[in-house]
Amino acid sequence: MPGSLGTSASLSLRLGQALFSSASLFFMSVGVEFYSYSAFCYLVTIMGLVIPWSFTLAIVDVYSLFVECPFHQPGIMMIIAVGDWVLSMLSLAAACSTVGVVDLLVDIDGSNCAPKLCGRYQLSAAMAFLSWFLTAISSFVNLWLLASL
Amino acid sequence: MPGSLGTSASLSLRLGQALFSSASLFFMSVGVEFYSYSAFCYLVTIMGLVIPWSFTLAIVDVYSLFVECPFHQPGIMMIIAVGDWVLSMLSLAAACSTVGVVDLLVDIDGSNCAPKLCGRYQLSAAMAFLSWFLTAISSFVNLWLLASL
Repeated sequence: MPGSLGTSASLSLRLGQALFSSASLFFMSVGVEFYSYSAFCYLVTIMGLVIPWSFTLAIVDVYSLFVECPFHQPGIMMIIAVGDWVLSMLSLAAACSTVGVVDLLVDIDGSNCAPKLCGRYQLSAAMAFLSWFLTAISSFVNLWLLASL
Repeated sequence: MPGSLGTSASLSLRLGQALFSSASLFFMSVGVEFYSYSAFCYLVTIMGLVIPWSFTLAIVDVYSLFVECPFHQPGIMMIIAVGDWVLSMLSLAAACSTVGVVDLLVDIDGSNCAPKLCGRYQLSAAMAFLSWFLTAISSFVNLWLLASL
Protein backbone atom coordinates (compact mmCIF):
# COMPACT_ATOMS: atom_id res chain seq x y z
CA MET A 1 0.00 0.00 0.00
CA PRO A 2 1.56 3.36 -0.99
CA GLY A 3 2.49 5.42 2.05
CA SER A 4 2.95 2.50 4.45
CA LEU A 5 6.27 1.96 6.21
CA GLY A 6 9.05 0.89 3.85
CA THR A 7 7.74 2.47 0.63
CA SER A 8 9.08 5.46 -1.30
CA ALA A 9 5.79 7.34 -0.72
CA SER A 10 6.31 6.92 3.03
CA LEU A 11 9.87 8.20 2.68
CA SER A 12 8.61 11.35 0.89
CA LEU A 13 5.98 11.89 3.59
CA ARG A 14 8.59 11.54 6.36
CA LEU A 15 11.03 13.89 4.65
CA GLY A 16 8.20 16.39 4.14
CA GLN A 17 7.27 16.18 7.82
CA ALA A 18 10.87 16.64 8.94
CA LEU A 19 11.29 19.57 6.54
CA PHE A 20 8.12 21.42 7.50
CA SER A 21 8.54 20.86 11.23
CA SER A 22 12.15 22.07 11.05
CA ALA A 23 10.98 25.15 9.13
CA SER A 24 8.29 25.77 11.75
CA LEU A 25 10.83 25.43 14.57
CA PHE A 26 13.26 27.71 12.73
CA PHE A 27 10.74 30.51 12.10
CA MET A 28 9.49 30.33 15.69
CA SER A 29 12.76 30.04 17.58
CA VAL A 30 15.47 31.97 15.71
CA GLY A 31 15.47 35.67 16.52
CA VAL A 32 11.96 35.64 18.01
CA GLU A 33 10.96 35.86 21.68
CA PHE A 34 8.82 32.74 21.62
CA TYR A 35 9.16 32.08 25.37
CA SER A 36 6.87 35.01 26.22
CA TYR A 37 3.77 33.07 25.15
CA SER A 38 2.92 29.55 26.29
CA ALA A 39 1.30 28.66 22.93
CA PHE A 40 4.59 29.40 21.15
CA CYS A 41 6.60 27.35 23.70
CA TYR A 42 4.17 24.49 23.12
CA LEU A 43 4.68 24.72 19.34
CA VAL A 44 8.47 24.65 19.78
CA THR A 45 8.20 21.59 22.08
CA ILE A 46 5.95 19.66 19.71
CA MET A 47 8.03 20.48 16.63
CA GLY A 48 11.05 19.31 18.62
CA LEU A 49 9.28 15.96 19.05
CA VAL A 50 8.09 15.63 15.43
CA ILE A 51 11.55 16.20 13.90
CA PRO A 52 13.35 13.20 15.52
CA TRP A 53 10.29 10.96 15.03
CA SER A 54 10.00 11.72 11.30
CA PHE A 55 13.75 11.57 10.80
CA THR A 56 14.05 8.15 12.49
CA LEU A 57 11.21 6.74 10.41
CA ALA A 58 12.75 8.22 7.23
CA ILE A 59 15.95 6.30 8.04
CA VAL A 60 13.91 3.11 8.60
CA ASP A 61 12.23 3.71 5.21
CA VAL A 62 15.58 4.18 3.47
CA TYR A 63 16.93 1.01 5.08
CA SER A 64 13.77 -0.89 4.15
CA LEU A 65 13.97 0.33 0.53
CA PHE A 66 17.64 -0.69 0.27
CA VAL A 67 17.24 -4.21 1.62
CA GLU A 68 13.88 -4.48 -0.24
CA CYS A 69 12.16 -5.95 2.78
CA PRO A 70 8.98 -4.09 3.82
CA PHE A 71 7.96 -4.18 7.50
CA HIS A 72 4.72 -5.94 8.25
CA GLN A 73 4.91 -6.81 11.96
CA PRO A 74 1.59 -5.69 13.51
CA GLY A 75 3.35 -4.69 16.76
CA ILE A 76 5.71 -2.20 15.11
CA MET A 77 2.98 -0.89 12.81
CA MET A 78 0.70 -0.36 15.78
CA ILE A 79 3.36 1.69 17.60
CA ILE A 80 4.00 3.77 14.47
CA ALA A 81 0.28 4.33 13.78
CA VAL A 82 -0.37 5.39 17.39
CA GLY A 83 2.76 7.61 17.46
CA ASP A 84 1.75 9.28 14.20
CA TRP A 85 -1.78 9.79 15.45
CA VAL A 86 -0.68 11.34 18.76
CA LEU A 87 1.89 13.59 17.06
CA SER A 88 -0.60 14.72 14.42
CA MET A 89 -3.09 15.68 17.15
CA LEU A 90 -0.38 17.53 19.08
CA SER A 91 0.85 19.38 15.96
CA LEU A 92 -2.68 20.41 15.05
CA ALA A 93 -3.24 21.63 18.62
CA ALA A 94 0.04 23.59 18.58
CA ALA A 95 -0.63 25.13 15.17
CA CYS A 96 -4.18 26.16 16.11
CA SER A 97 -3.26 27.70 19.44
CA THR A 98 -0.42 29.60 17.73
CA VAL A 99 -2.79 30.93 15.09
CA GLY A 100 -5.30 31.97 17.77
CA VAL A 101 -2.63 33.83 19.75
CA VAL A 102 -1.10 35.52 16.66
CA ASP A 103 -4.53 36.65 15.53
CA LEU A 104 -5.19 38.18 18.96
CA LEU A 105 -1.73 39.82 19.06
CA VAL A 106 -2.33 41.45 15.67
CA ASP A 107 -5.78 42.64 16.78
CA ILE A 108 -5.19 44.07 20.21
CA ASP A 109 -1.57 44.99 20.44
CA GLY A 110 0.05 46.26 17.26
CA SER A 111 3.11 47.59 19.10
CA ASN A 112 4.06 44.27 20.74
CA CYS A 113 3.82 42.40 17.48
CA ALA A 114 5.79 44.18 14.77
CA PRO A 115 4.73 43.18 11.21
CA LYS A 116 7.98 41.29 10.74
CA LEU A 117 7.59 39.27 13.97
CA CYS A 118 3.92 38.52 13.32
CA GLY A 119 4.79 37.36 9.82
CA ARG A 120 7.31 34.91 11.27
CA TYR A 121 4.79 33.57 13.79
CA GLN A 122 2.26 33.08 10.98
CA LEU A 123 4.83 31.35 8.75
CA SER A 124 5.74 29.06 11.64
CA ALA A 125 2.07 28.16 12.18
CA ALA A 126 1.59 27.53 8.44
CA MET A 127 4.57 25.16 8.41
CA ALA A 128 3.18 23.38 11.48
CA PHE A 129 -0.15 22.93 9.63
CA LEU A 130 1.67 21.39 6.64
CA SER A 131 3.60 19.09 8.98
CA TRP A 132 0.32 18.10 10.67
CA PHE A 133 -1.27 17.32 7.30
CA LEU A 134 1.55 14.98 6.25
CA THR A 135 1.62 13.27 9.68
CA ALA A 136 -2.15 12.77 9.49
CA ILE A 137 -1.78 11.10 6.06
CA SER A 138 0.92 8.75 7.44
CA SER A 139 -1.21 7.94 10.46
CA PHE A 140 -4.27 7.26 8.30
CA VAL A 141 -2.40 4.94 5.92
CA ASN A 142 -0.76 2.96 8.74
CA LEU A 143 -4.04 2.65 10.64
CA TRP A 144 -5.88 1.50 7.50
CA LEU A 145 -3.20 -1.11 6.77
CA LEU A 146 -3.22 -2.30 10.37
CA ALA A 147 -7.02 -2.66 10.38
CA SER A 148 -7.06 -4.57 7.08
CA LEU A 149 -4.32 -7.04 8.15
CA MET B 1 -18.05 -4.01 16.92
CA PRO B 2 -18.91 -1.83 19.96
CA GLY B 3 -19.11 1.85 19.03
CA SER B 4 -20.01 1.33 15.37
CA LEU B 5 -23.23 2.78 13.95
CA GLY B 6 -26.34 1.10 15.29
CA THR B 7 -24.99 -0.09 18.66
CA SER B 8 -25.79 1.16 22.14
CA ALA B 9 -22.14 2.20 22.65
CA SER B 10 -22.44 4.41 19.56
CA LEU B 11 -25.65 5.90 20.94
CA SER B 12 -23.87 6.78 24.22
CA LEU B 13 -20.97 8.36 22.29
CA ARG B 14 -23.36 10.45 20.17
CA LEU B 15 -25.36 11.59 23.19
CA GLY B 16 -22.10 12.51 24.95
CA GLN B 17 -20.94 14.51 21.93
CA ALA B 18 -24.26 16.34 21.67
CA LEU B 19 -24.23 17.06 25.41
CA PHE B 20 -20.64 18.34 25.61
CA SER B 21 -20.88 20.42 22.43
CA SER B 22 -24.15 21.96 23.64
CA ALA B 23 -22.50 22.75 26.98
CA SER B 24 -19.52 24.29 25.16
CA LEU B 25 -21.85 26.41 23.00
CA PHE B 26 -23.86 27.43 26.06
CA PHE B 27 -20.85 28.54 28.13
CA MET B 28 -19.38 30.45 25.19
CA SER B 29 -22.48 32.16 23.82
CA VAL B 30 -24.84 32.95 26.72
CA GLY B 31 -23.96 36.20 28.48
CA VAL B 32 -20.44 36.38 27.02
CA GLU B 33 -19.13 38.67 24.28
CA PHE B 34 -17.73 35.87 22.16
CA TYR B 35 -17.90 37.87 18.89
CA SER B 36 -14.96 40.07 19.95
CA TYR B 37 -12.46 37.28 19.24
CA SER B 38 -12.30 35.23 16.07
CA ALA B 39 -11.20 32.08 17.92
CA PHE B 40 -14.37 32.19 20.02
CA CYS B 41 -16.57 32.76 16.94
CA TYR B 42 -14.89 29.75 15.35
CA LEU B 43 -15.64 27.61 18.41
CA VAL B 44 -19.29 28.66 18.34
CA THR B 45 -19.52 27.83 14.60
CA ILE B 46 -17.95 24.40 14.99
CA MET B 47 -20.03 23.47 18.03
CA GLY B 48 -23.07 24.57 16.00
CA LEU B 49 -22.04 21.99 13.38
CA VAL B 50 -21.25 19.16 15.84
CA ILE B 51 -24.61 19.37 17.65
CA PRO B 52 -26.90 18.58 14.64
CA TRP B 53 -24.44 15.95 13.33
CA SER B 54 -24.31 14.04 16.64
CA PHE B 55 -28.01 14.44 17.22
CA THR B 56 -28.92 13.08 13.77
CA LEU B 57 -26.63 10.09 14.23
CA ALA B 58 -28.06 9.48 17.72
CA ILE B 59 -31.53 9.28 16.13
CA VAL B 60 -30.19 6.85 13.49
CA ASP B 61 -28.72 4.74 16.33
CA VAL B 62 -32.01 4.70 18.22
CA TYR B 63 -33.90 3.70 15.06
CA SER B 64 -31.31 1.02 14.30
CA LEU B 65 -31.53 -0.37 17.86
CA PHE B 66 -35.35 -0.48 17.70
CA VAL B 67 -35.61 -2.28 14.36
CA GLU B 68 -32.57 -4.41 15.35
CA CYS B 69 -30.97 -3.94 11.96
CA PRO B 70 -27.38 -2.56 12.13
CA PHE B 71 -26.11 -0.49 9.18
CA HIS B 72 -23.26 -2.04 7.22
CA GLN B 73 -23.35 -0.26 3.84
CA PRO B 74 -19.75 0.83 3.11
CA GLY B 75 -20.98 4.04 1.40
CA ILE B 76 -22.87 5.32 4.44
CA MET B 77 -20.12 4.21 6.82
CA MET B 78 -17.53 6.02 4.71
CA ILE B 79 -19.55 9.27 4.85
CA ILE B 80 -19.95 8.92 8.63
CA ALA B 81 -16.26 8.11 9.22
CA VAL B 82 -15.12 11.05 7.08
CA GLY B 83 -17.66 13.40 8.69
CA ASP B 84 -16.59 12.32 12.18
CA TRP B 85 -12.93 12.72 11.28
CA VAL B 86 -13.41 16.23 9.84
CA LEU B 87 -15.56 17.35 12.77
CA SER B 88 -13.09 15.94 15.32
CA MET B 89 -10.22 17.87 13.65
CA LEU B 90 -12.33 21.05 13.58
CA SER B 91 -13.36 20.66 17.26
CA LEU B 92 -9.77 20.09 18.32
CA ALA B 93 -8.66 23.15 16.35
CA ALA B 94 -11.43 25.27 17.87
CA ALA B 95 -10.72 24.08 21.43
CA CYS B 96 -6.97 24.67 21.09
CA SER B 97 -7.25 28.14 19.60
CA THR B 98 -9.74 29.06 22.35
CA VAL B 99 -7.36 27.82 25.03
CA GLY B 100 -4.49 29.76 23.45
CA VAL B 101 -6.50 32.97 23.34
CA VAL B 102 -7.87 32.58 26.90
CA ASP B 103 -4.38 31.95 28.22
CA LEU B 104 -3.13 35.12 26.54
CA LEU B 105 -6.11 37.14 27.79
CA VAL B 106 -5.45 36.04 31.37
CA ASP B 107 -1.75 36.85 31.02
CA ILE B 108 -1.73 40.24 29.38
CA ASP B 109 -5.00 41.86 30.11
CA GLY B 110 -6.58 41.14 33.46
CA SER B 111 -9.09 43.95 33.14
CA ASN B 112 -10.59 42.75 29.82
CA CYS B 113 -11.06 39.22 31.11
CA ALA B 114 -12.84 39.24 34.46
CA PRO B 115 -12.33 35.99 36.45
CA LYS B 116 -15.95 34.99 35.86
CA LEU B 117 -15.71 35.51 32.08
CA CYS B 118 -12.36 33.72 31.80
CA GLY B 119 -13.75 30.81 33.78
CA ARG B 120 -16.61 30.50 31.31
CA TYR B 121 -14.25 30.58 28.32
CA GLN B 122 -12.13 27.87 29.94
CA LEU B 123 -15.18 25.72 30.75
CA SER B 124 -16.33 26.09 27.16
CA ALA B 125 -12.92 24.97 25.86
CA ALA B 126 -12.89 22.00 28.27
CA MET B 127 -16.31 20.90 27.02
CA ALA B 128 -15.09 21.26 23.42
CA PHE B 129 -12.11 19.00 24.27
CA LEU B 130 -14.45 16.35 25.71
CA SER B 131 -16.65 16.58 22.62
CA TRP B 132 -13.54 16.22 20.42
CA PHE B 133 -12.43 13.14 22.36
CA LEU B 134 -15.77 11.36 21.89
CA THR B 135 -15.94 12.33 18.19
CA ALA B 136 -12.40 11.00 17.70
CA ILE B 137 -13.40 7.66 19.26
CA SER B 138 -16.42 7.41 16.94
CA SER B 139 -14.29 8.29 13.95
CA PHE B 140 -11.63 5.74 14.89
CA VAL B 141 -14.15 2.91 15.37
CA ASN B 142 -15.95 3.63 12.08
CA LEU B 143 -12.67 3.90 10.17
CA TRP B 144 -11.39 0.64 11.67
CA LEU B 145 -14.63 -1.18 10.78
CA LEU B 146 -14.57 0.27 7.25
CA ALA B 147 -10.96 -0.82 6.72
CA SER B 148 -11.60 -4.34 8.01
CA LEU B 149 -14.72 -4.89 5.84
